[in-house]
Amino acid sequence: MAPSLESQRPTLEDGETAPSKVTIVGSGNWGSVAAKLVASNTLKLSSFHDEVRMWVFEETLPSGEKLTEVINRTNENVKYLPGIKLGQNVVADPDIEHAVKDANMLVFVTPHQFMEGICKRLVGKIREDAEAISLIKGMEVKTEGPCMISTLISQQLGINCCVLMGANIANEIAVEKFSEATVGYRENREMAQKWVGLFGTPYFMVSAVQDVEGVELCGTLKNIVAIAAGFVDGLEMGNNTKAAIMRIGLREMKAFSKLLFSSVRDSTFFESCGVADLITTCLGGRNRKCADAFARSGGKRSFDELEAEMLQGQKLQGVSTAKEVYEVLSHRGWLELFPLFTTVHEICIGRLPPSAIVEYSEHTPKFSLLDGSTQLY
Amino acid sequence: MAPSLESQRPTLEDGETAPSKVTIVGSGNWGSVAAKLVASNTLKLSSFHDEVRMWVFEETLPSGEKLTEVINRTNENVKYLPGIKLGQNVVADPDIEHAVKDANMLVFVTPHQFMEGICKRLVGKIREDAEAISLIKGMEVKTEGPCMISTLISQQLGINCCVLMGANIANEIAVEKFSEATVGYRENREMAQKWVGLFGTPYFMVSAVQDVEGVELCGTLKNIVAIAAGFVDGLEMGNNTKAAIMRIGLREMKAFSKLLFSSVRDSTFFESCGVADLITTCLGGRNRKCADAFARSGGKRSFDELEAEMLQGQKLQGVSTAKEVYEVLSHRGWLELFPLFTTVHEICIGRLPPSAIVEYSEHTPKFSLLDGSTQLY
Repeated sequence: MAPSLESQRPTLEDGETAPSKVTIVGSGNWGSVAAKLVASNTLKLSSFHDEVRMWVFEETLPSGEKLTEVINRTNENVKYLPGIKLGQNVVADPDIEHAVKDANMLVFVTPHQFMEGICKRLVGKIREDAEAISLIKGMEVKTEGPCMISTLISQQLGINCCVLMGANIANEIAVEKFSEATVGYRENREMAQKWVGLFGTPYFMVSAVQDVEGVELCGTLKNIVAIAAGFVDGLEMGNNTKAAIMRIGLREMKAFSKLLFSSVRDSTFFESCGVADLITTCLGGRNRKCADAFARSGGKRSFDELEAEMLQGQKLQGVSTAKEVYEVLSHRGWLELFPLFTTVHEICIGRLPPSAIVEYSEHTPKFSLLDGSTQLY
Repeated sequence: MAPSLESQRPTLEDGETAPSKVTIVGSGNWGSVAAKLVASNTLKLSSFHDEVRMWVFEETLPSGEKLTEVINRTNENVKYLPGIKLGQNVVADPDIEHAVKDANMLVFVTPHQFMEGICKRLVGKIREDAEAISLIKGMEVKTEGPCMISTLISQQLGINCCVLMGANIANEIAVEKFSEATVGYRENREMAQKWVGLFGTPYFMVSAVQDVEGVELCGTLKNIVAIAAGFVDGLEMGNNTKAAIMRIGLREMKAFSKLLFSSVRDSTFFESCGVADLITTCLGGRNRKCADAFARSGGKRSFDELEAEMLQGQKLQGVSTAKEVYEVLSHRGWLELFPLFTTVHEICIGRLPPSAIVEYSEHTPKFSLLDGSTQLY
């Protein structure tokens, strides 16, 4: 029989604040791994309440059982992270309002398209002193500016929101392969360190940078570069060309982020959320894979068709992000500053052949278009 | 019959300076590709003399012919770059003193261990107004500091020396696959632009940065990181871990370069010589390959043995560079600041198992050891 969780809690000494209570909002593949990481730390650290609550969108399994019941009985998310013990202190809860009501540390890790609805449901239902972190990649980039998930959470719920991004393939971290991540924070360095402590383990090294926007934009823009890298693979152009395209992509990620937010720091792109996530995504990843197949077909098969065939219901984000970014660039007159982003979109919509990804002679950035723009690169 | 080279030369107008004469010192795989790139540009640009002289270390081929004779007859370096036309304006010359005597632009591209001897032979034999560029990667890092090839050339010959580095797999550039490179220069931006014009083509994009040391150190230090990446591959740890190790490696390359030369710029590591060359080297490349095999053998086969078996006479630079860097770190008390570089060397000499490459819990950099050192990262 499992020991009572509370028996492991150290006594609260004078002057200590009450331990923080953590709730994970989301329970997919990455959400489940996040729960495992967090739950291993709340047991060890006296500044956290042992129990980690995890909101689970309830499903009935083929066996007829409810998903939350199976998770709470087996300590496994049998549907989204089978074979991995989450920790006995993870409690699955199908009621989102109940799951968040006692928590002062909220971890958001759902598909990005659900976040607006979730925020609306949670207004007035969370603690006033709650702090949030978003692990959600793939915000939308609208013409009037990017719709940052961290901003959505902050504005809708009236709370502070950090982000955690990085080279994070959930299944590899689940089996405790060495990895890293980056926490982006706005002002409160102490809170950022608390998130670092909550997520970090010897095999999952987390560091914090004061740059929410830079960190969050990395997690989205890398998918455009992965499409470009996939084209290079499909054209069988070799590692040399692929490395060049990845570098140009990283440069455009940096330049685009800095044009949108002057607070974005160059150094962020050396962090796990920048160069490392880019490398992982361009080596493996579904954007790369579908773009590879697209190029091999000579652009004759559509991304919709390839996605349906190759991804078993998972969604490709690079193509839609490329379109969104293209609209921003076009709207602001920046197309010529971003030859790679621009070309990716034009290949995706069939305006250019896949081989255009390396035809740069006429696409060299026009540095003179914006004052001081050479510093963007 | 080939047209006379001189017939293509535009007439010199009033105020124009005499066209520059280029000599390539070296004719291996990369040297031959460099000759091809340069020769395509000297034909097009009136600021250069059409003819490109290439010093060739004379060899007698199995057919009994001299290598220089075959190159001059066929326009191919049949030994080191077979199947590629160098251009009719490339003239192979077995006499190094004769090859350099008229040139005011010298391109050095030999194995690095020959450079000291070559410089000694050329003292007093070159034009006084000569400018140099080094394409040579793999300088030695001695305890008293790195022995930069560009510095060796500058000091021995009393001339200015730029460097050109980048993600440059010679055989891929030879078949005109898209690639990039970085020119590092010290002060003379105009001269750097002249080198950019001499090497750049639509498929070989060159840019210049004012940071000779940063650019040159990238070309050497990346090989240590490639050894680490090879260990990760051999241990089958996946792309996520590999990306993390590459990122940490890039961070240490930057920190080490900045500690040695305060003039080194962060932005250099975003250039082709930095992140792109690192990616290429960690994806393919012989350092990665041998380190992969080393890890698969559990460290039981030595690098000497693997090198002899796998590289057909080519040399592995990462292992010796790791040793040289370790000596510098040890001598200066910096070992703890560079856990990845340190660990690579200790694995290579058998002091640690290959799996130590990802055991970072006890190897976290101690930022407090050096004032301001956090900015190194």
